[in-house]
Amino acid sequence: MAFSMSRQLAAEFVGTVMLVGVVIGSGIMGDALSSDDAVSLWGNTAATGAILVVLILIFGPVSGAHFNPAVTLAFRLRKEIATGAALAFVVAQIAGGCAGAIIANVMFDLPAVQLSDKVRTGPTQLLSEAVATFSLLAAIFGCVRFKPEAVPYAVGLVITAGYWWTSSTSFANPAVAIARTLSDTFAGIRPVDAPAFVIVQLLTAAIATPLLMWLFKAED
Amino acid sequence: MAFSMSRQLAAEFVGTVMLVGVVIGSGIMGDALSSDDAVSLWGNTAATGAILVVLILIFGPVSGAHFNPAVTLAFRLRKEIATGAALAFVVAQIAGGCAGAIIANVMFDLPAVQLSDKVRTGPTQLLSEAVATFSLLAAIFGCVRFKPEAVPYAVGLVITAGYWWTSSTSFANPAVAIARTLSDTFAGIRPVDAPAFVIVQLLTAAIATPLLMWLFKAED
Amino acid sequence: MAFSMSRQLAAEFVGTVMLVGVVIGSGIMGDALSSDDAVSLWGNTAATGAILVVLILIFGPVSGAHFNPAVTLAFRLRKEIATGAALAFVVAQIAGGCAGAIIANVMFDLPAVQLSDKVRTGPTQLLSEAVATFSLLAAIFGCVRFKPEAVPYAVGLVITAGYWWTSSTSFANPAVAIARTLSDTFAGIRPVDAPAFVIVQLLTAAIATPLLMWLFKAED
Amino acid sequence: MAFSMSRQLAAEFVGTVMLVGVVIGSGIMGDALSSDDAVSLWGNTAATGAILVVLILIFGPVSGAHFNPAVTLAFRLRKEIATGAALAFVVAQIAGGCAGAIIANVMFDLPAVQLSDKVRTGPTQLLSEAVATFSLLAAIFGCVRFKPEAVPYAVGLVITAGYWWTSSTSFANPAVAIARTLSDTFAGIRPVDAPAFVIVQLLTAAIATPLLMWLFKAED
Repeated sequence: MAFSMSRQLAAEFVGTVMLVGVVIGSGIMGDALSSDDAVSLWGNTAATGAILVVLILIFGPVSGAHFNPAVTLAFRLRKEIATGAALAFVVAQIAGGCAGAIIANVMFDLPAVQLSDKVRTGPTQLLSEAVATFSLLAAIFGCVRFKPEAVPYAVGLVITAGYWWTSSTSFANPAVAIARTLSDTFAGIRPVDAPAFVIVQLLTAAIATPLLMWLFKAED
Repeated sequence: MAFSMSRQLAAEFVGTVMLVGVVIGSGIMGDALSSDDAVSLWGNTAATGAILVVLILIFGPVSGAHFNPAVTLAFRLRKEIATGAALAFVVAQIAGGCAGAIIANVMFDLPAVQLSDKVRTGPTQLLSEAVATFSLLAAIFGCVRFKPEAVPYAVGLVITAGYWWTSSTSFANPAVAIARTLSDTFAGIRPVDAPAFVIVQLLTAAIATPLLMWLFKAED
Repeated sequence: MAFSMSRQLAAEFVGTVMLVGVVIGSGIMGDALSSDDAVSLWGNTAATGAILVVLILIFGPVSGAHFNPAVTLAFRLRKEIATGAALAFVVAQIAGGCAGAIIANVMFDLPAVQLSDKVRTGPTQLLSEAVATFSLLAAIFGCVRFKPEAVPYAVGLVITAGYWWTSSTSFANPAVAIARTLSDTFAGIRPVDAPAFVIVQLLTAAIATPLLMWLFKAED
Repeated sequence: MAFSMSRQLAAEFVGTVMLVGVVIGSGIMGDALSSDDAVSLWGNTAATGAILVVLILIFGPVSGAHFNPAVTLAFRLRKEIATGAALAFVVAQIAGGCAGAIIANVMFDLPAVQLSDKVRTGPTQLLSEAVATFSLLAAIFGCVRFKPEAVPYAVGLVITAGYWWTSSTSFANPAVAIARTLSDTFAGIRPVDAPAFVIVQLLTAAIATPLLMWLFKAED
């Protein structure tokens, strides 16, 4: 099946709208309903993991279901997407992520556009983002190599774990990091902190891609 | 496999009984056991997501496992069900939903028929229902198009996310909205608020169906 | 593949040991760690649903993975198991269940054999058990009919929902009901209350089996 | 597909880094965010179960995805791995586990190497480890025998249940037990308590392997 570029960009846009909408919306819901931050984080986690499975099931065959400039960069390094398409994908992802943040804010009756005050900075947060991005790419490339139909489940599950085992809660996605600056809620990040997240995510993608290609290559 | 209309209607009826029974019953259980509303919502979410997977696995081959007039409308617009059958489905769904509400009330030793006092109104709730109904239809049509055997899991997961990322907790189903007026408990909705939910759900189905048919159509 | 009766009985015994061990053990753990009963119930639910998937995956091909006299009765009514084998299965299930209760008690440093003081009685509890047993059999027979490889997941999920939407928390299993009298902990049931549970479960199996066989029968 | 020994050892090392990283990291996160230990344990459980599915999906085809000396011993007893390779696997697993503990400590801004003060001792804890190790091997060997593609899910689910139904929370893995001595946090274990865990785990593997091979052997 071949899909036109307009459909592919629509899939990347709509998918990232929904991904960021869930990340931010479920954070608001969890935070509003509970005084226990771990309970809030669990609602946030379950919703995010669940929607990732769905979005990759339905948009994977259309566009590859990246929703993530670090993933698009990795596929560019693997020469599986052209430079022009990759750039268009990244624009659609960032635009979709910002639209998703706005929709989540509005659904919960908050100002449509906000700037987050949530501090997420320091070397341990950046180490967390490197670990999270490596884990995400390992899950994707391992399944693409051995069991492509498991990609949706593996990505949902690696992010489920990521929300809990990294101190940054695993953004692992530059478009999501940028979009999350636009909501001053549970899942937010200060605009001043986002660039370092984005750089670490992209750098990790650049380094991890050849390592993982070596690891998953059979002898024959 | 072809199933008689009586079996199809029985499947729609029993499935909607169980769906609404779980939605309302697990809400009562969660609310009774916890003073933390996010914990209650999680029990409600997990039970609803779980039963949806089961109900679609077992009734999907019989009737298509709609349990939802908005879904039946969408399949009517796709010309995959006749008008007469669609109307009969909707009657079975609403009757089943109301029976499910009554059974849940009785199992928890509450008056069999109640009218909910829970306020669910305003433009942000209605926006939430539009988003929720769009998400549900995207999950269904995307999987039907690319991976039909994943429909049960995708629907369970999209509703799992929906309970947390929309401020209305994603009814996304006119029969369920009507049935939930009949229980003055955690999952209830005031009778006066239900019609707007139903209208938004049906309108969203009418608008989303052609959009999603365009999006999921390959070039060749 | 054909398995000897001794292997089949070993599978029913070991499987029911593990099932009841999980039901009771996770109840003790949840209750000990939390003051919020809904949180305890969630730990109990997740552990039970998870182990059911595993046990049916690994013992299904050996013995059919009943672990449940109501299920064995239903398969007897469907003429898929002989009377002598069915009786032997039930003995193995009850013995396994009791052993599982004892192991759970001992793992948590409690007296090996106890009698529960937990009151579970009255018509709404019995209605709950009828609903729970019907749901379990619908999940099993529906998947056996349309998608046998989904049985492990459907059973785990229908019990996950059952713990929350029925006021009895869905025992739905005479061997488990008997075994749960032997632990005076979160998942216990008074010995005096168990017989009514068992009778309702078996009666429901007898009534639901022909109804479900009708429902899931295609025209051609 | 055949993978070089260096790739196999890299898979065992990286996989155990990630497994222990998740076990310890999610324990720290859960403990930091909640005052309810059952909520903390649930975050710990969900993250561990989720990452196990992912790691076995992506590293299973490379090295078998043992990450566990008890599992490697069992496969050695089944003559499915040579002694030299088995010893190399165990070294990679222990080294990976220790690295994972250090990474988790550092991500959460704690001293890189610590010694745990958490007491985990006594006969009921050791009984729990025997039960947990038996359950893990039953899940693995049963699925390997009947449904190899379900191994990732079965292992994730058997550990999900194990965290709740055994009083030790199911280490079931000597490399993980050793590594968990290096973090004085939620998932830690005192160095003095680890050897008994390791011995019980290996003894259980030695005893359970022939029993399970008998149980899962068909007549023809």
